[in-house]
Amino acid sequence: MFDGWHEECGVFGIHGHPEAANMTYLGLYALQHRGQESAGIASSDGEVITFHKEMGLVADIFSEEVLARIPGHMAIGHVRYSTTGSSELKNAQPVVVDFESGSIAVAHNGNLVNAHEIKRELEVSGSIFQSTMDTEVIVHLIARSRKERVEDRIVDALNQVRGAYSLLFMTRDKLIGVRDPHGIRPLVLGKLKGDGGTVICSESCALDLIEAQYVREVDPGEMIVVDARGTQTYKPFLPAVERFCIFEHVYFARPDSIMGGTSIYQVRKELGRQLARECPAKADVVIPVPDSGVPAALGYSEAAGIPFEMGLIRNHYVGRTFIEPQQSIRHFGV
Amino acid sequence: MFDGWHEECGVFGIHGHPEAANMTYLGLYALQHRGQESAGIASSDGEVITFHKEMGLVADIFSEEVLARIPGHMAIGHVRYSTTGSSELKNAQPVVVDFESGSIAVAHNGNLVNAHEIKRELEVSGSIFQSTMDTEVIVHLIARSRKERVEDRIVDALNQVRGAYSLLFMTRDKLIGVRDPHGIRPLVLGKLKGDGGTVICSESCALDLIEAQYVREVDPGEMIVVDARGTQTYKPFLPAVERFCIFEHVYFARPDSIMGGTSIYQVRKELGRQLARECPAKADVVIPVPDSGVPAALGYSEAAGIPFEMGLIRNHYVGRTFIEPQQSIRHFGV
Amino acid sequence: MFDGWHEECGVFGIHGHPEAANMTYLGLYALQHRGQESAGIASSDGEVITFHKEMGLVADIFSEEVLARIPGHMAIGHVRYSTTGSSELKNAQPVVVDFESGSIAVAHNGNLVNAHEIKRELEVSGSIFQSTMDTEVIVHLIARSRKERVEDRIVDALNQVRGAYSLLFMTRDKLIGVRDPHGIRPLVLGKLKGDGGTVICSESCALDLIEAQYVREVDPGEMIVVDARGTQTYKPFLPAVERFCIFEHVYFARPDSIMGGTSIYQVRKELGRQLARECPAKADVVIPVPDSGVPAALGYSEAAGIPFEMGLIRNHYVGRTFIEPQQSIRHFGV
Amino acid sequence: MFDGWHEECGVFGIHGHPEAANMTYLGLYALQHRGQESAGIASSDGEVITFHKEMGLVADIFSEEVLARIPGHMAIGHVRYSTTGSSELKNAQPVVVDFESGSIAVAHNGNLVNAHEIKRELEVSGSIFQSTMDTEVIVHLIARSRKERVEDRIVDALNQVRGAYSLLFMTRDKLIGVRDPHGIRPLVLGKLKGDGGTVICSESCALDLIEAQYVREVDPGEMIVVDARGTQTYKPFLPAVERFCIFEHVYFARPDSIMGGTSIYQVRKELGRQLARECPAKADVVIPVPDSGVPAALGYSEAAGIPFEMGLIRNHYVGRTFIEPQQSIRHFGV
Repeated sequence: MFDGWHEECGVFGIHGHPEAANMTYLGLYALQHRGQESAGIASSDGEVITFHKEMGLVADIFSEEVLARIPGHMAIGHVRYSTTGSSELKNAQPVVVDFESGSIAVAHNGNLVNAHEIKRELEVSGSIFQSTMDTEVIVHLIARSRKERVEDRIVDALNQVRGAYSLLFMTRDKLIGVRDPHGIRPLVLGKLKGDGGTVICSESCALDLIEAQYVREVDPGEMIVVDARGTQTYKPFLPAVERFCIFEHVYFARPDSIMGGTSIYQVRKELGRQLARECPAKADVVIPVPDSGVPAALGYSEAAGIPFEMGLIRNHYVGRTFIEPQQSIRHFGV
Repeated sequence: MFDGWHEECGVFGIHGHPEAANMTYLGLYALQHRGQESAGIASSDGEVITFHKEMGLVADIFSEEVLARIPGHMAIGHVRYSTTGSSELKNAQPVVVDFESGSIAVAHNGNLVNAHEIKRELEVSGSIFQSTMDTEVIVHLIARSRKERVEDRIVDALNQVRGAYSLLFMTRDKLIGVRDPHGIRPLVLGKLKGDGGTVICSESCALDLIEAQYVREVDPGEMIVVDARGTQTYKPFLPAVERFCIFEHVYFARPDSIMGGTSIYQVRKELGRQLARECPAKADVVIPVPDSGVPAALGYSEAAGIPFEMGLIRNHYVGRTFIEPQQSIRHFGV
Repeated sequence: MFDGWHEECGVFGIHGHPEAANMTYLGLYALQHRGQESAGIASSDGEVITFHKEMGLVADIFSEEVLARIPGHMAIGHVRYSTTGSSELKNAQPVVVDFESGSIAVAHNGNLVNAHEIKRELEVSGSIFQSTMDTEVIVHLIARSRKERVEDRIVDALNQVRGAYSLLFMTRDKLIGVRDPHGIRPLVLGKLKGDGGTVICSESCALDLIEAQYVREVDPGEMIVVDARGTQTYKPFLPAVERFCIFEHVYFARPDSIMGGTSIYQVRKELGRQLARECPAKADVVIPVPDSGVPAALGYSEAAGIPFEMGLIRNHYVGRTFIEPQQSIRHFGV
Repeated sequence: MFDGWHEECGVFGIHGHPEAANMTYLGLYALQHRGQESAGIASSDGEVITFHKEMGLVADIFSEEVLARIPGHMAIGHVRYSTTGSSELKNAQPVVVDFESGSIAVAHNGNLVNAHEIKRELEVSGSIFQSTMDTEVIVHLIARSRKERVEDRIVDALNQVRGAYSLLFMTRDKLIGVRDPHGIRPLVLGKLKGDGGTVICSESCALDLIEAQYVREVDPGEMIVVDARGTQTYKPFLPAVERFCIFEHVYFARPDSIMGGTSIYQVRKELGRQLARECPAKADVVIPVPDSGVPAALGYSEAAGIPFEMGLIRNHYVGRTFIEPQQSIRHFGV
């Protein structure tokens, strides 16, 4: 059930804010480290869902003009990591479709292990697929469910899939967040001051940027439904062993996020301390590979009593296109 | 069964040419007058279908770099007219999907009259829709068909829809062109010199640009299947009254195209002559609104014996963005 | 004294309009046929001259945002034709410089025959050149003049050059138009309704677009100075034989412009009639190369009594980039 | 003689490398922290100087296509910091002009204190200025010099100015680097392996990126001339008190550069240690403002025995455009 580090994504959803798309833009901005391939936002004004998605970085895609075309008090957004060399717009999220009950938008962080199998079955019974994302499988299962309420359709659909998912759904009037029973991918709940709205997103650092309050993590197997009547929580799935992805603490998450009740920064520092205990080294200096290696190096330095120094400098202007000279210089990528 | 002038599109497909996407690019270029909103090309190398579509003009979308990412000896392309103010990428064509039998790409010129009705039925039985195009209805019907061969699935699907369609389908190894039984929208068959490939497209002017030979019009209700074994033709539908859209002769088509066996230019000139007979005018001069009005004005001038003059000048650099002064000038759009 | 057809440009200047840059934008838009390589606008608010110039078409360069950065009640603009393969931004106009008397902006249509000679002399006495334009020579001569008033400095400078020029100068408070004594290049004077401002520009079609009234042509050797006190006219140069460039009537100018008191369209038609008289042909039909050949073909048709037909169709979507197929098609440029 | 921190720039020049523009691109890339407003490269193939400059970042401006248009074995480049809100292309460097002796390109880091005074004098004697850069003053003085050789003209010119300058000049066959007598701005000399060329640039980190060897700093008041005959060094100015700008060590320079014989990183760390001695603090933790504050914080932590922690996280995807929500969030810029 390996959900490789190439499959990282970030999700952000908000309900009850007059500038929902703007807030989602900011939230995705804070989650940009979770995916640089594509970004998208879908919003609802209570009647109609509109959306915009593109290849590229959040700040390049969402101009004021584009955000003005995504009105409403609810929105969900997604940033996606490049999974293969041939990354494609058709795989950008949120996925927005019409089905029997109306429109629905979905943003997904995770991977299903039985997606291919279900896709094959769905195709045999007449379904068409317009992307290669596991997420489209979930949407089909929701559309095929015989249940009435969208919440029940979602539960119905998710009971058929196995794997990792932190999912945000948006209908014209509901924001729904679900975390898989193993709690593989992160998902947190936040609140804006006053009655400024409810947020569900991948990491607490996105709450900080918009000055929302961190409430708690969404529990493994929990479904949270936010609409005009308030926030309700369900535990519709069979309990499962908790299997939080260790790569979040090691690499994916931003150091200022809180996961599993502790700061990612502190966890990384402790990993460095533990490394010093397990693998002591005779050395003059501890040097991190910036920026993700800094906390662990600080921990190692502290535990081992070896001085910490910044021995590698990061160029902050690394662009996406880079012309390498045809000769003379090797290993330029590094 | 009105297929309004806002719903004009152009299609171009080619089989058996090593640079199929390049040729399709040229074909769409010649058909650009049929749609300026979006353009797309899907190609097949016999194994995999790849595609690219974007909002904008053919020459702006398809750079050499983009065309190089759409390899293969078969391709279909589409240009789309802006149907509403909020034109969207999700409605660009070709539509490319995976279904039980593999991948299929579709390019459609026309409108169905019972699309909404079928869409509703499909949704009730669990289908999802990712666009607002009639074309997606056709694709669903193909996927739902119980027939084995894709040709039979297409016939099955089209037997359920009513309306106007000139359609191109591409599977990994077949190019299929179909024209509705009423022959509402144009579709012509062409041949490149030697064994340079078979072309099916909206207007003969696209054949001229790539130096292909005009063979004939696709008949109303005819289906043409082109693959490695050659070209086969079928008449799988019940015959119907011919109802070719008069707006093609009046406005849509390029004057150098041939439709219904006669040149559009000659038809427009004859319309002008007829107008002179039906509505004679005491006038000093006949002035066309360029460029589409020129042939009719020439005809009127000839029949009425009134001199023809170019009294209105067209600015060839009309851009898509145009800043109007805030005061002083009225009626600037004209 | 050949001022080749590769050296065509368009100039537009306005004084006394609150949206001077916007009006200049529209004026250049109407003059776009005179130069597609680069475009620029310089404006003055009475104190400071600001400007913007870029490679490309007027409508692509001047967005609302860019125009908002060029405030003031006076402005001059320029469109430039590609003179060589290596067209460069450094040669875009208006040229804006600081010199002893303040700032000055210059827009030039024409070519000097002794520019190289003067440039050499100026360099020997310590001048530097930042472009390869003749216009920069004129600016140096103005800066070197010992006269006090800018009008006198301009006359001083122009007395040293020989060749074709229709020039617009703008200081912080004056708009000055000058036409060379031979009257080689066109320059017309217009008035906006009420007290909406004075315009000096290359062709009357630019006046039409902004609904300004055509007053008259600027005379050969005339200098017109417009400022807060009104419009004054001078004839500071020795009279010379009139040598209006025949290519304006044949090719450069827009058919709806008036030059030398007659419509370009009528002149071209008369050229066609004359051709019919001088070179009668036994033919079935007269076919123009659109669009510039249309009036002459109409004239030929009329004089020869041979029917006029549109036998060549112009593709209105010809883009600046065009991917030619690597094989199969020759002579694609045409 | 304050050369404010808003006036930082970076220069890079190379002689004797077949891909001189590519190497300069890489050098500017490493110097990007010294200026993000505009960037430019001028090259010489021994006969002709070509150049390209634009607003923006090095990696965005110089595509392979652009670099291919700047051929030759010599090049100089420049990155410029935004000095005012209205930053403009006309102030981008290198400045490239024609004068009596041919073409010359100049890249300048620094500020002159008597530029306005000299500019006024030059204007009175007929000079024109096309930018607001001090550099243009230097170029005028070179053009006005009565000396024969360009080296002597440069010395002549620089003897008339006072202030800070690290300058690179390029004629069609010479690369010349000069540092002002006070040595206010940095300039270093490097060598590529074998006979791969000579480099003169602002900081040693640019040498590291292209794998050139650091030779030494250019001395205050030194002029280095590189051409086909080799490298020659001159001390043409009166000696002056050394006044190296302290902001280089504090803020401007990259920590991995060497200036004044010591690593910037070590200097910053020592500044932190000294701060701990001069301003001891009762604190639990030392937290840097990343990234420039990290070395000083490490030094303070070390000297004070207070633990160092990363308490502020930098978002690596900070874009140039950022849409702030209209309400709810204050102080967003930070």
